[in-house]
Amino acid sequence: MRPQDALPEGLPAALPDGVREALLAPLVDHHCRGVRRDDLVRARFEPLITESDGPAPPGTTHFDTPAGAAIRRWCAPLLDLEPYAPPAVYLARRAELGPEDVNRRLLRGAGIAAFLVEAGTEAPELLSAAEMGRYGGAAVDEIVQLEQIEHEVAETAGSGVAYIETLETGLAERAARATALTSAIAHHRGLDFDPARPSRGAVIAAANRRLADPKEPLTDQVLLRHLLWTAVEVARERGLPLRFHTGYGGREAAPHRADPALLATFARALQPMGVPVVLLGCYPFHRQAAYLAATLPHVYVDAGLALTGAGAAAVIGELLELVPFHKQLFGSHGGGVAETCYLGALHYRRGLARALAQRLAADEWSAADAARVAYLLGSGNARRLYRL
Amino acid sequence: MRPQDALPEGLPAALPDGVREALLAPLVDHHCRGVRRDDLVRARFEPLITESDGPAPPGTTHFDTPAGAAIRRWCAPLLDLEPYAPPAVYLARRAELGPEDVNRRLLRGAGIAAFLVEAGTEAPELLSAAEMGRYGGAAVDEIVQLEQIEHEVAETAGSGVAYIETLETGLAERAARATALTSAIAHHRGLDFDPARPSRGAVIAAANRRLADPKEPLTDQVLLRHLLWTAVEVARERGLPLRFHTGYGGREAAPHRADPALLATFARALQPMGVPVVLLGCYPFHRQAAYLAATLPHVYVDAGLALTGAGAAAVIGELLELVPFHKQLFGSHGGGVAETCYLGALHYRRGLARALAQRLAADEWSAADAARVAYLLGSGNARRLYRL
Amino acid sequence: MRPQDALPEGLPAALPDGVREALLAPLVDHHCRGVRRDDLVRARFEPLITESDGPAPPGTTHFDTPAGAAIRRWCAPLLDLEPYAPPAVYLARRAELGPEDVNRRLLRGAGIAAFLVEAGTEAPELLSAAEMGRYGGAAVDEIVQLEQIEHEVAETAGSGVAYIETLETGLAERAARATALTSAIAHHRGLDFDPARPSRGAVIAAANRRLADPKEPLTDQVLLRHLLWTAVEVARERGLPLRFHTGYGGREAAPHRADPALLATFARALQPMGVPVVLLGCYPFHRQAAYLAATLPHVYVDAGLALTGAGAAAVIGELLELVPFHKQLFGSHGGGVAETCYLGALHYRRGLARALAQRLAADEWSAADAARVAYLLGSGNARRLYRL
Repeated sequence: MRPQDALPEGLPAALPDGVREALLAPLVDHHCRGVRRDDLVRARFEPLITESDGPAPPGTTHFDTPAGAAIRRWCAPLLDLEPYAPPAVYLARRAELGPEDVNRRLLRGAGIAAFLVEAGTEAPELLSAAEMGRYGGAAVDEIVQLEQIEHEVAETAGSGVAYIETLETGLAERAARATALTSAIAHHRGLDFDPARPSRGAVIAAANRRLADPKEPLTDQVLLRHLLWTAVEVARERGLPLRFHTGYGGREAAPHRADPALLATFARALQPMGVPVVLLGCYPFHRQAAYLAATLPHVYVDAGLALTGAGAAAVIGELLELVPFHKQLFGSHGGGVAETCYLGALHYRRGLARALAQRLAADEWSAADAARVAYLLGSGNARRLYRL
Repeated sequence: MRPQDALPEGLPAALPDGVREALLAPLVDHHCRGVRRDDLVRARFEPLITESDGPAPPGTTHFDTPAGAAIRRWCAPLLDLEPYAPPAVYLARRAELGPEDVNRRLLRGAGIAAFLVEAGTEAPELLSAAEMGRYGGAAVDEIVQLEQIEHEVAETAGSGVAYIETLETGLAERAARATALTSAIAHHRGLDFDPARPSRGAVIAAANRRLADPKEPLTDQVLLRHLLWTAVEVARERGLPLRFHTGYGGREAAPHRADPALLATFARALQPMGVPVVLLGCYPFHRQAAYLAATLPHVYVDAGLALTGAGAAAVIGELLELVPFHKQLFGSHGGGVAETCYLGALHYRRGLARALAQRLAADEWSAADAARVAYLLGSGNARRLYRL
Repeated sequence: MRPQDALPEGLPAALPDGVREALLAPLVDHHCRGVRRDDLVRARFEPLITESDGPAPPGTTHFDTPAGAAIRRWCAPLLDLEPYAPPAVYLARRAELGPEDVNRRLLRGAGIAAFLVEAGTEAPELLSAAEMGRYGGAAVDEIVQLEQIEHEVAETAGSGVAYIETLETGLAERAARATALTSAIAHHRGLDFDPARPSRGAVIAAANRRLADPKEPLTDQVLLRHLLWTAVEVARERGLPLRFHTGYGGREAAPHRADPALLATFARALQPMGVPVVLLGCYPFHRQAAYLAATLPHVYVDAGLALTGAGAAAVIGELLELVPFHKQLFGSHGGGVAETCYLGALHYRRGLARALAQRLAADEWSAADAARVAYLLGSGNARRLYRL
């Protein structure tokens, strides 16, 4: 499938050539994770397309969801099926083609120039960053996931002092071959943390407690803040952006504690250091993120929303009313199954196309403006920010 | 008036037959209250169509509101008036027909198969649940309002210990003939309560204080939490859902304390007990509620919004992008005057029709998908959840 | 330029004459500030069209923003340029005409009957309220900015006791020739303040601390609350509304602390005093503001949003679904450069036109209803509330 098929059928005729080209140009996907390399029977596939950790109610399935409807509509044709294929038919065809072919079709169909892959738990059943690139016909870069590094350090360090040293060297080593660092503190504990750097003594004490049970997820506020500030040092030295998951995500966290507005003081503290801050996700607090990106010169906001259809157009439209065009970036938020990467790109392109078409139809923007915005959001801003 | 007249005039032609039928099918209204049985002069009618507790500014009336405009537009024809009848004409015709005829026209016009009526203060001027059903040509079921039961208990219990016992037996008795329990803690005190169960000693002490002045509204945190946990036990034993008012509502509470996100920890604690949690209202925090419903298998969200026209379509559309289709339920949020029940159903049907028509026009959903969603939201989910 | 050119080209034909007239009628701009009187080279102009306090990233400019695009599209024709003029061409033409001519064209083009000008730091490079009126062909009234008065008092008072007395007399004097008082506590400290009036002793102690360094911005909670309560007394005596900046704004504040919902308890305390409360800005918390305006008879909400294009229509539409029509007021939120005043009025008129056209097309409102709403929001409510 060529990327141009991703455009809503009604729109291309109404879009000037330059805008259509800009929308179809390969994207930099600045936020994705690996997808599964193995065969997935229905009982394994369904949990990967839902945020829920339980079964669907009797008489329903996890295909009775916005994501399920989108897979049947948009991914089925990439597997040579009719749109709206029933779940059983879709999964049978998926099994018939095999995961290698399916992943290649979906990742390549997304029309991506470069994947920035967040390296999490390096599970053997997930494609590596390099493999993501190979299947997708794209360049790849790695993003360091801070809590993952901390987890490795906590499992090996012998003392609180060693923990601090190993974390510093571990982060610096991984950052040397990465393009950015990402924090998931929003979903480990919430963004309402004390923005001050904790004292060395407090960190050693907390680390000693943690080393007693390093398999536990990191929820200690002192260590999470220490991790962040260690990352700030590394980011400053290497000129890397520091990214934050915000908004939805994390089964343990409450959504209101992932409001990016809570990051305001911490983000301001980073401004004089020249460390760019990237707010990932954000929805449903994208308007709060927009404000930070509009007021703080070093704050960027993610315009990849993992919403379906009409929703993507509305939210992309809201960001276009609030955020400087040089501060927004596309990311698919894909991961787990390749369908999510493909749909992230498709919904972004369709949503942006609709938002631009509205502005052109209302004679609010020129075609050249619309094309420039599509280029900046789709790849230009990411190339500049991440120095690709 | 037949329910099909509720559809926006422009839409039916564009909707496939199966979708139109699903939209017109009788609804289960899973959240309403009784309406007035008596004649209502203007000075009594206006306060029932506004959330405000004061008069409108000079030169204006409470008909200068979204609700007032909708009554004049949509309810006037049910009283044989032209659309947009002036308030004085509308109220004169209402008086001429008499409350019995008006209630019958409006409740029947709503096209409801079953009313789930929240039993609040059993004021003699309100129709009982049974009467609501008779006028509306519908089945009825009762929902227990927790704070109402507590109020009765507080007025009769002689000691803190008796309070605890009477509350348990009182709730169990009422629950035996109800389909769900509803908490208004959001509007009594806010959803930012300590989710832990209070100790028996703390409850007895607080109850003893309360018994000194039982006419006061319940705002004590310990007693509100005790009431909730007592309700959880009853709900678990009887397999009933526990429902929460969230979002707008309650003149005393601040809106930000009714954000359903604040319920996340408490709701998670109920997951292993198998007690379904239903979030009512939610607007303007429906996206936060959506996230809880998407991630927690036992959480449901109310898709009845009591907004007018275009607003209902937008919010229903947002929920359809976020929430599994088996987790959303229609409720009119009507009560006080029958106009609100009729408008709740009308705006829901019109809003959903518009949201579905958009998805069909954009070739994002099939007609069968759209019909299935209309059926699940309109009655299927409620029948399954409430075991109707 | 005549105001009718402000209407979207596609709309006027679809709008009944009465509605078009109501939309084109001169507006009362209930919230603006002075604009610059001097020549502005690009390095001085760009910071005035952004909220950011730093330069745009390399290869981009502050014209790569929603505001920049709107200036090129809508203001260029008022300077006899083609729409979408490049920034350099726009600024060259602006310099050629000179600030006096430019300010006259833009302020007059806004179609304003009266400017209510917030008197802030009376910088000599800003037009005074009287000059704003002269250039714009409009009446003017002054709004007292509370923190500005406090700043003057802090610089001259010799003691804590004198501070209290001077503040009282200073506020009363300024209020005698003003139509309202405005607080910026949201952006100085946040709206999550203790609503109780501080004791005289606490105020004297805090004032004595403040007098040691009166040039500092006011962030002390006791003094900010004292300022508010002093303003409440003045407002009550003179029958003036008390206004609050809420929502976006203030580089130092975090957006979530400017949520107008946080004002609920304080606003309720003012209800028996008969002091109207006006919530300015509000976005992205306009739905929370809407709830306060719908439930509290003395609370008003600002429907001027300083958003561009499609965004303005959406937010205006949301307010029309929630807020009584007699509780919403237009304000341009302009200031700094006259472009912002012109665009505030233009986006308001275009947005409202679109929202009304939608309701008329869906046969939800009559043309008379739509015209009445346009009149109330555009000037009627402001004339009544501010006694103009």
